[in-house]
Amino acid sequence: MAEISGFYVVAQTTFTDTGALDLGSLDSLCDFYIRHGVQGFTALGVSGEAFRLTVSESLAVAERYIARCEGRPVIIGTSNASIAHLVDMTHRVMDMGATGVMIAPAAGLRTETDLKNYFAQVFDGIGDTPVVLQDFPAATGVHMSVASMAALVADHPSICAIKHEDAPSLPKLTRLLEAMPRPVPILTGSNAQYLPEELRRGAEAPMAGFSFPEVLARIDALHRAGDEDGVDEIFASFLPLIRHEAQGVWGLAVRKEIMRRRGAMRSGFMRAPAPRLDRYDMAEIDRLLTLLARRSDMVSPDLVGCGHV
Amino acid sequence: MAEISGFYVVAQTTFTDTGALDLGSLDSLCDFYIRHGVQGFTALGVSGEAFRLTVSESLAVAERYIARCEGRPVIIGTSNASIAHLVDMTHRVMDMGATGVMIAPAAGLRTETDLKNYFAQVFDGIGDTPVVLQDFPAATGVHMSVASMAALVADHPSICAIKHEDAPSLPKLTRLLEAMPRPVPILTGSNAQYLPEELRRGAEAPMAGFSFPEVLARIDALHRAGDEDGVDEIFASFLPLIRHEAQGVWGLAVRKEIMRRRGAMRSGFMRAPAPRLDRYDMAEIDRLLTLLARRSDMVSPDLVGCGHV
Amino acid sequence: MAEISGFYVVAQTTFTDTGALDLGSLDSLCDFYIRHGVQGFTALGVSGEAFRLTVSESLAVAERYIARCEGRPVIIGTSNASIAHLVDMTHRVMDMGATGVMIAPAAGLRTETDLKNYFAQVFDGIGDTPVVLQDFPAATGVHMSVASMAALVADHPSICAIKHEDAPSLPKLTRLLEAMPRPVPILTGSNAQYLPEELRRGAEAPMAGFSFPEVLARIDALHRAGDEDGVDEIFASFLPLIRHEAQGVWGLAVRKEIMRRRGAMRSGFMRAPAPRLDRYDMAEIDRLLTLLARRSDMVSPDLVGCGHV
Amino acid sequence: MAEISGFYVVAQTTFTDTGALDLGSLDSLCDFYIRHGVQGFTALGVSGEAFRLTVSESLAVAERYIARCEGRPVIIGTSNASIAHLVDMTHRVMDMGATGVMIAPAAGLRTETDLKNYFAQVFDGIGDTPVVLQDFPAATGVHMSVASMAALVADHPSICAIKHEDAPSLPKLTRLLEAMPRPVPILTGSNAQYLPEELRRGAEAPMAGFSFPEVLARIDALHRAGDEDGVDEIFASFLPLIRHEAQGVWGLAVRKEIMRRRGAMRSGFMRAPAPRLDRYDMAEIDRLLTLLARRSDMVSPDLVGCGHV
Repeated sequence: MAEISGFYVVAQTTFTDTGALDLGSLDSLCDFYIRHGVQGFTALGVSGEAFRLTVSESLAVAERYIARCEGRPVIIGTSNASIAHLVDMTHRVMDMGATGVMIAPAAGLRTETDLKNYFAQVFDGIGDTPVVLQDFPAATGVHMSVASMAALVADHPSICAIKHEDAPSLPKLTRLLEAMPRPVPILTGSNAQYLPEELRRGAEAPMAGFSFPEVLARIDALHRAGDEDGVDEIFASFLPLIRHEAQGVWGLAVRKEIMRRRGAMRSGFMRAPAPRLDRYDMAEIDRLLTLLARRSDMVSPDLVGCGHV
Repeated sequence: MAEISGFYVVAQTTFTDTGALDLGSLDSLCDFYIRHGVQGFTALGVSGEAFRLTVSESLAVAERYIARCEGRPVIIGTSNASIAHLVDMTHRVMDMGATGVMIAPAAGLRTETDLKNYFAQVFDGIGDTPVVLQDFPAATGVHMSVASMAALVADHPSICAIKHEDAPSLPKLTRLLEAMPRPVPILTGSNAQYLPEELRRGAEAPMAGFSFPEVLARIDALHRAGDEDGVDEIFASFLPLIRHEAQGVWGLAVRKEIMRRRGAMRSGFMRAPAPRLDRYDMAEIDRLLTLLARRSDMVSPDLVGCGHV
Repeated sequence: MAEISGFYVVAQTTFTDTGALDLGSLDSLCDFYIRHGVQGFTALGVSGEAFRLTVSESLAVAERYIARCEGRPVIIGTSNASIAHLVDMTHRVMDMGATGVMIAPAAGLRTETDLKNYFAQVFDGIGDTPVVLQDFPAATGVHMSVASMAALVADHPSICAIKHEDAPSLPKLTRLLEAMPRPVPILTGSNAQYLPEELRRGAEAPMAGFSFPEVLARIDALHRAGDEDGVDEIFASFLPLIRHEAQGVWGLAVRKEIMRRRGAMRSGFMRAPAPRLDRYDMAEIDRLLTLLARRSDMVSPDLVGCGHV
Repeated sequence: MAEISGFYVVAQTTFTDTGALDLGSLDSLCDFYIRHGVQGFTALGVSGEAFRLTVSESLAVAERYIARCEGRPVIIGTSNASIAHLVDMTHRVMDMGATGVMIAPAAGLRTETDLKNYFAQVFDGIGDTPVVLQDFPAATGVHMSVASMAALVADHPSICAIKHEDAPSLPKLTRLLEAMPRPVPILTGSNAQYLPEELRRGAEAPMAGFSFPEVLARIDALHRAGDEDGVDEIFASFLPLIRHEAQGVWGLAVRKEIMRRRGAMRSGFMRAPAPRLDRYDMAEIDRLLTLLARRSDMVSPDLVGCGHV
């Protein structure tokens, strides 16, 4: 049984400036993440642009992360409108050496009975593959009650973690922790916007993306060391940028641009439908980085002014 | 340029009783459709269970219909959440010899600007592949105005037909016909529930499914011959069953069961999430077929009582 | 405790040709319904244009139906985005002499826990007022599972009936009947499109609208008399029109136009946002009525050709 | 013509601990807002709990804000599922002396043609009443493109401002400013989460709520004085709390609790469906206020530890 613990980064997919998959950049991004303290990877999630790839590209991304992760666990998102396709992809990435898969309920599930039946069918196909159950109604349109999530955990022993990113995060997190029928780590997404409070309420760790992953790693470490004032301080410093990146697909474009400036990838290109950053967007990034460089030695002033519009 | 004309059947995908793809039944179903007067095929639409297959199964279904159709045109549905995947599948099925593809806008498109950009990106990938533009908001959640559909037709010369199944069908059909910037045939879905009125308002033909496809073929032929009383008579006779099959996924299970009884396929199995017909459902099918057998010589009484629950 | 039995008509609201409330026509419509066999009234539902009125107009409509119904039961729809408003309106119409109220869950309820809490709050405000629980997800966006509806019935003894119009109607109706924790009549809407099968599966009666309410009354009576062949025959005759009127707001405009032609109301006007029938729409109505007049002595040929566009 | 300028607070509705409307607290809240620098009021918006009131309560709230505002402008939200009701309420609050009304498109509008028709009908009823057009798709489900908003502004000269709270805020704000056919101030909501950037891109001012309205007033003033560093500094200090309150209905409960602690209202009660804050929620508020009290002399340490669970 997979044990999910520590900070999992929600990892990007990298493209060239003309939109081809760039596996070289994937390697450098993977190294960047490792260098900045991630303990595990979650690839091919919503912000990994899973829904902008072909099937063979998805498999190539999964394979590359697994090959490059230096033994760290790699969770692959395999949510799909087709259960048959989901099952097929799950078997393929597990054969490649993935640690487990992340699955969110398919759009269009309407009642909790439907939800229960859906996961019965999914697990019928994937057997005892370790599963991170993703609760992300903003993307799926499916709202799972605490009771129904607890029932899924009870029914399916191979659910090894929950990725919680329903809103509002905090009260539901507490209710989930109270309701779990067995110990299941809950990792939190929401682009880390509520991370300090989530950790204090009992979340295991972040499973989130940020252009400065070392900040999430440090918050996680400070929390484990009991230094809550330290948590609040670093969080407050970076919150203007955390908030800025937490603006959907456009925020993800901002994140990729900053990671490009940091040398983590050659291009911040996103596949359509996606925004192209303009000079206003770039000026804001410059300003936010300038302020951060003043406040934190984790941010280099070199990152300012190197955008290309 | 593909010319879409006449009755296109929305064709099913066939499975064994345990859920494996049954290509033998696909052949017999294809022959059944040809024998009963279809002029073209639309495969891998919503009611072709496209979202219950793996990619390789989808390709196998497309290939088989193309091989078996005896030269009739075959349109393949390639709508997908990922444009890259849609483009990839489109190229593959066109290479196999498909006549064109059917594309509905992806769930989540919010404004008409988004819609316009979406299709610009799609056509950027698929070039001049003939496209049937599908307007099916009940399935996609995307509502296209008449003006925006007309703009898509103007912008993209390879849109060769519209499959119209917005509701209510009739007033929008008239507005669409008035707004088209060039002659584009409009075929209608909605399980043929409004077919007589649609034809009289100027629809080209049905692009729909029904367990008695010969009825849709005959309605289409009677209309072309100007026999509107004949249209109304046969339509009224079959409307209780047409209406019965027009009940979403459950109605599709009814349709497959009746086609199984007619020998068109070995099993009416649908992949999950899908209903299993029970004895109440079977009794209703029996009653509807009994009534039809009394009224129409197109329905054999042998179809009654041969269900297995 | 209210006993809901027999055919309840979903009653319209009447306007003048310029959109003012026309209470005189409401009287004649009420008389028309009584003359054509309705046993009860449901006013201010979705197709009663409840969401196109002011509060004082809503109260005036409720009051007039109650005054004119000749002792028949009158259910008033009081669903509202605001529970406070719903409670206030419920008390007011009960004070006027309504038999009970019809309530659908408010748009935006997301989980079954939310649903349970919602009705706890509603019943906290309205006490033991008799309630028809309306299940109409196409209008509310709220999908109630059979289990959660059974729980509501168990928790709230003043739920005196269910108006069922989820789709597909038939399998859910059977599951509901099996799951009810106490005897609760289930009346069915869906514009009577599935009425014969619903009655045979155990529905109490229709709670639906149709421009020929005597047809629904006769189907209900034939079913009670055990004459299922009679049910099927009259249903099949009128199904082309039943289906035609079952097309949302546009279908309702068709229904009001036919009732205008029958003298039930002075104008078929609907308040915005609503369609205006054009000459194509009128020609279809003429054709449908012509066919019906040939087939059934319940339809007068005088109704043809008296539309004004 | 109303001129909307400066910081408008999105004002709350106040209740007693048992849920009755508390107009005395409304007075003290109004004074609190004035004391803390608001230039105008927007009452009966989503976070004013407009959808938890009766009609007479709504009118009482509007009347009280207008009476107590000391001559400042008061905008009243009158969005409603019923245009007739919206028009009726608009006339009533304008007769009371409101400056204008705020209107968001009704849920269920599907295409831009529908949107255009909807506002034509609304303005047909309300004439030249000054209107703040609210763009808040998270609440309405209606997504307005920049082009369609510009068309509404062109068609309806009495649109005197836009309340922009679509997400992501920033790129759409710039596109809106570029597209406006005449000068129309754009005020921004989103609980002030993106306020510095919004002001720099050309937003007129905030139209938002926050438990420390003086912070929004100061940010607005600093921006007008050209002190962008000052803007960033105070924004960064308060962002942990701004973000915390920006969590939907639960965040609003947090906001009301803090305003209760500040003496602005007697109770933070929210009407159902609404959260009740528990000890975890209170502990987080305490921690956030403690941190703020350390950083800013605008926050009194007395606010800590005075919650009651």
